[in-house]
Amino acid sequence: MYLSSEKTNIKLLGTVFITLCCLASQLPSEAAASRVFPSSHGPIQATTLKSDLHHPWGMAFINANRVLITERRGRLLALNLKSKHTQVVRGLPRIIAQGQGGLLDVAIDPQFEKNRWVYISYTGGLPRSKSTHVGRGKLQNGKLNQFQVIFKASPLMKSQFHFGSRLVFSNQGHLYISLGERGQKSLAQDPSNHSGSMIRVWPDGSVPADNPFLKQRGYQPSIFSYGHRNMQGAALHPTTGEVWAHEHGPKGGDEINVIRPGRNYGWPKTTYGIDYDGTIISTQTTLPGITSPIHHWTPSIAPSGMAFVKGPLFSKWRGDLLVGALKDRRLMHLTIRGEQVLEQEPLLGELAERIRDVEIGPSGAIYLLTDSKNGSLLKLTPQQ
Amino acid sequence: MYLSSEKTNIKLLGTVFITLCCLASQLPSEAAASRVFPSSHGPIQATTLKSDLHHPWGMAFINANRVLITERRGRLLALNLKSKHTQVVRGLPRIIAQGQGGLLDVAIDPQFEKNRWVYISYTGGLPRSKSTHVGRGKLQNGKLNQFQVIFKASPLMKSQFHFGSRLVFSNQGHLYISLGERGQKSLAQDPSNHSGSMIRVWPDGSVPADNPFLKQRGYQPSIFSYGHRNMQGAALHPTTGEVWAHEHGPKGGDEINVIRPGRNYGWPKTTYGIDYDGTIISTQTTLPGITSPIHHWTPSIAPSGMAFVKGPLFSKWRGDLLVGALKDRRLMHLTIRGEQVLEQEPLLGELAERIRDVEIGPSGAIYLLTDSKNGSLLKLTPQQ
Repeated sequence: MYLSSEKTNIKLLGTVFITLCCLASQLPSEAAASRVFPSSHGPIQATTLKSDLHHPWGMAFINANRVLITERRGRLLALNLKSKHTQVVRGLPRIIAQGQGGLLDVAIDPQFEKNRWVYISYTGGLPRSKSTHVGRGKLQNGKLNQFQVIFKASPLMKSQFHFGSRLVFSNQGHLYISLGERGQKSLAQDPSNHSGSMIRVWPDGSVPADNPFLKQRGYQPSIFSYGHRNMQGAALHPTTGEVWAHEHGPKGGDEINVIRPGRNYGWPKTTYGIDYDGTIISTQTTLPGITSPIHHWTPSIAPSGMAFVKGPLFSKWRGDLLVGALKDRRLMHLTIRGEQVLEQEPLLGELAERIRDVEIGPSGAIYLLTDSKNGSLLKLTPQQ
Repeated sequence: MYLSSEKTNIKLLGTVFITLCCLASQLPSEAAASRVFPSSHGPIQATTLKSDLHHPWGMAFINANRVLITERRGRLLALNLKSKHTQVVRGLPRIIAQGQGGLLDVAIDPQFEKNRWVYISYTGGLPRSKSTHVGRGKLQNGKLNQFQVIFKASPLMKSQFHFGSRLVFSNQGHLYISLGERGQKSLAQDPSNHSGSMIRVWPDGSVPADNPFLKQRGYQPSIFSYGHRNMQGAALHPTTGEVWAHEHGPKGGDEINVIRPGRNYGWPKTTYGIDYDGTIISTQTTLPGITSPIHHWTPSIAPSGMAFVKGPLFSKWRGDLLVGALKDRRLMHLTIRGEQVLEQEPLLGELAERIRDVEIGPSGAIYLLTDSKNGSLLKLTPQQ
């Protein structure tokens, strides 16, 4: 899919630096914004590619040079990693940036080179009546043209909490949308609404013929699984093609789940967590008919963003999982065998940044977004 | 998408010939089966890559080396152009090979490398109650695994005529299925059945959210356009992304149409043809509400198979249309500007073969299937 290798670009970037360092004063400092951190893969170099991002939330690579980044306040940025040019993409819909809501994830169509579709998830509706929406537009000349809403979660509510959401394309071309339960626990166990569900639709929002609840009266046909609390990380497993997702627990009980059709993941009937005020939500961690997580974090780390390691750069970690931690201000490296988490290695502790999103770039480098008013795009590579 | 260039393969093929010509007696004659024909692109070399095909109907390239070929009697062949090995693919459904029916077209999923789905169109049902079906299976170890029917045309009928059909994937991932009207003219003007329609579905058979008749009571929601007679050629326009299709007229009135949503292409209300017995079908060639063809052949050529020229080999013809002719036993080269046919150049007349299918291979060579009990796969390249 990628026309040129990232290695080539790094060389070109070097040339640009040499040429321009006398002209543009900020370039030398950006080039110098690089630190080294220890890891089980050996020393890792973390380079700041872009700072001054206002609460960046999601990212998607168009190719080795171009990445799209969302800011929760409602800006979509197209960043050229070679020229360092940043463009604010126009043509976005009205976005309600309140509380945990705003512009959330971004994804590009599997056939983007042919059809130019870019997908965003965001809080849409009105300030007092809103929900997670997903829309798409054709990225042309810095604008999302022909913008159309392909999914609106029901119900629309005033709540400013638990919107999810991540967008993941499957190898079949389905679009998975992870949601939250808007802070209304009971909604997560009621599949007549979308709250607390994983959604699976075609890219135009239509419902696949084999969705699990298609013929079940009273169920939302786009629901793929339910009983989730707030999923802010999801990724396609590189060999099985299944979607894995994590979700925030309350106080304790953050979970990783392998998402399977028609399953109930239990919230709030089962949980490893307790409520923020210390009260018991459920004494059950497992129940018949409920699928258990393959991993939980108690106490919570507040996970956000997730990626499976692939490509040549971090070959020792291939197939492992990387999860951003907001509260813990770390990148979690989980050694995976089958569906088991064998080990957990916290990384970048010295950086002390809230990690909002994790992606593997076209060449296999790890890219992170840090969550703050002055957030950054970081690139991790093994130290040369 | 293709891992190696066809040029490399040709070289390797040469090596194989040199190595094996003493061992396998049929190879030297196959290697020699090459003729040169004149054309407006200069002399064209036609090489027989495979003979002994029993009424081959459709083909689809997996990569530069591997092509799938259907035989109407119900065999799907996987041909390795490098090793010359041919495998009969197992796992096909029951196919009713009668009259014009049988195994028709084959297509591979836009994400085939990730999901292995292969699609076939065929006559399914029972000998006295049958229609065009489309199904898919995952091509693994020479077998279509997990085979599922994703579309069945209604109504099922005894008729052995006008099953269509070609399969075309759009840049959005939609699957277009061209059908015939089963020899029952009136069905083509009645969108409560599928006969005489172009179908548009998602690869699992579900209906896209923006199909034109989705909310029209009594209409089949999968219909994209109707009023067609028998479409045995369809192709995606390389720049507009629209589907173009041709259809057999009766006696005269073969048409090329640009397929647009919700349109009625007129059969049998309008036609440039007359019935085989000489009677008038319609005195009208145009009517309000009916979309006219961009080109018609009167007398008929009996078109089958269609491809837009792309790639580097036939650069002078880029964007032009190639159409196989059964009755005329030629390959038609149509010079296209916008939606106009400027010129028509009949090719390969000296070959005197019925051309059933036309495809452009990964490297830009033209591939043809000839229709007979001893049909062939031919490759056309500019003479070196």
